[in-house]
Amino acid sequence: MQISLIGSGRVAQHLAQVLALQHQIVNIYARDLLQAQHLAAQVNATAVSVYADLQPVALCIIAVSDQAIANVAAQVSAVLPDCLLLHTSGSTALDIFPETHLRRGVLYPLQTFSFESQIDWKKTPLLIETNHADDLPRLKNLATTLSERVYCYDSAQRLSLHLAAVFACNFSNYCYDMAAQIVTAQQVDFNLLYPLMLETAKKATQHAPQQVQTGPAKRGDQNILALHQSLLQQQPDLAEVYQLMSQQIMQRHVD
Amino acid sequence: MQISLIGSGRVAQHLAQVLALQHQIVNIYARDLLQAQHLAAQVNATAVSVYADLQPVALCIIAVSDQAIANVAAQVSAVLPDCLLLHTSGSTALDIFPETHLRRGVLYPLQTFSFESQIDWKKTPLLIETNHADDLPRLKNLATTLSERVYCYDSAQRLSLHLAAVFACNFSNYCYDMAAQIVTAQQVDFNLLYPLMLETAKKATQHAPQQVQTGPAKRGDQNILALHQSLLQQQPDLAEVYQLMSQQIMQRHVD
Repeated sequence: MQISLIGSGRVAQHLAQVLALQHQIVNIYARDLLQAQHLAAQVNATAVSVYADLQPVALCIIAVSDQAIANVAAQVSAVLPDCLLLHTSGSTALDIFPETHLRRGVLYPLQTFSFESQIDWKKTPLLIETNHADDLPRLKNLATTLSERVYCYDSAQRLSLHLAAVFACNFSNYCYDMAAQIVTAQQVDFNLLYPLMLETAKKATQHAPQQVQTGPAKRGDQNILALHQSLLQQQPDLAEVYQLMSQQIMQRHVD
Repeated sequence: MQISLIGSGRVAQHLAQVLALQHQIVNIYARDLLQAQHLAAQVNATAVSVYADLQPVALCIIAVSDQAIANVAAQVSAVLPDCLLLHTSGSTALDIFPETHLRRGVLYPLQTFSFESQIDWKKTPLLIETNHADDLPRLKNLATTLSERVYCYDSAQRLSLHLAAVFACNFSNYCYDMAAQIVTAQQVDFNLLYPLMLETAKKATQHAPQQVQTGPAKRGDQNILALHQSLLQQQPDLAEVYQLMSQQIMQRHVD
């Protein structure tokens, strides 16, 4: 498939790498030409930093920040009015595209991207949506070249996954961050907690998280709860999280 | 080494399995004789449910709930006054043992235990402490037969790890639990989030969690934050966690 890609951020970079394995990437667009060139060179594409320079293609993926999608989509639509345009956002509905642009869709990879880590695309759930039945086979076709796990969900369901991902990913990472602050204050190496973190995540993929909840709040162990809160007196933010999370875990596990 | 084990809960069960590979487990004690017998049969030990029946051994591990340690330690000490007694609690200091019992120590596995999952003991950090220098070599010797990662930490450092583990393990699991509630309400399968959860945990073991924080709060994306909070109106507990965690993440990542 001939595809162009708009963006040079984390999602765009990971997408470019995996798309290039099976498809021809025609153009990579970024506002900063140097960034576009850097990425384009890796995937044998032509870098552009002016929308008018985009070559005709059947499919164009807009992998930019949520706030930028509306404006970028309008610009690309003006140059490629007949192109199937996709965005990659979990929290953005299909109506972000210009009203006049009928061939529109979503290709949302449910994964956390960073510049540092590789992604296992085959196991990454890809959520697709389009409002033209004609475009669905092509979108499905593209998605299945990237991942074994392709799902058709509507915008409300995709939004619930995006919100859930904030809890499962962003908030769990902040829990790790708070843990790191606690041990570092005692000159203890944070890496002692790695096996625990990995085992906890693994276990929650093997059983319902509610069933494998452990800890003092789950046990209703008031002595330990009081001891821990006394240790957090110098870290009021952490104390507040400890209090709220413990209270909710206790409520959820009342017999 | 000849070792007896007090307890039949999660930690005791996992310990019994790994100890039996290289040591002789003499007695398994549990208040409930059937539970003691069930575990003893798996590791070729003799079950007892009366403290007076404990046979003389050089080393005895008390793997019971934190609240029960003081009472159990007193009972075992009365029968085995010369035995090196260890407890396995991260949040309990050495002075939980009877004053008269001088040979005392801690063997704290920093790991989450459940009946359902196997533990990779070799990679599990074991934190040891004893207040008799004579006992340290034996305790270290025992610990290194179980794990490649043995650390001598004092009670304050062990306590900071125990508290940090609540954040990194119990609270992150509760984040998964909340995520499961969100998607289930929209008839979306929670298993779509598995790759994200595993990747997030892995990434936090490869970089400082603060450096790999992502999400709308990290970006200061007020549109998405407002959208998410409007979606949580029917789940006030989750809304409260969302609000607090987002606020703290934003503060921590202000330039």
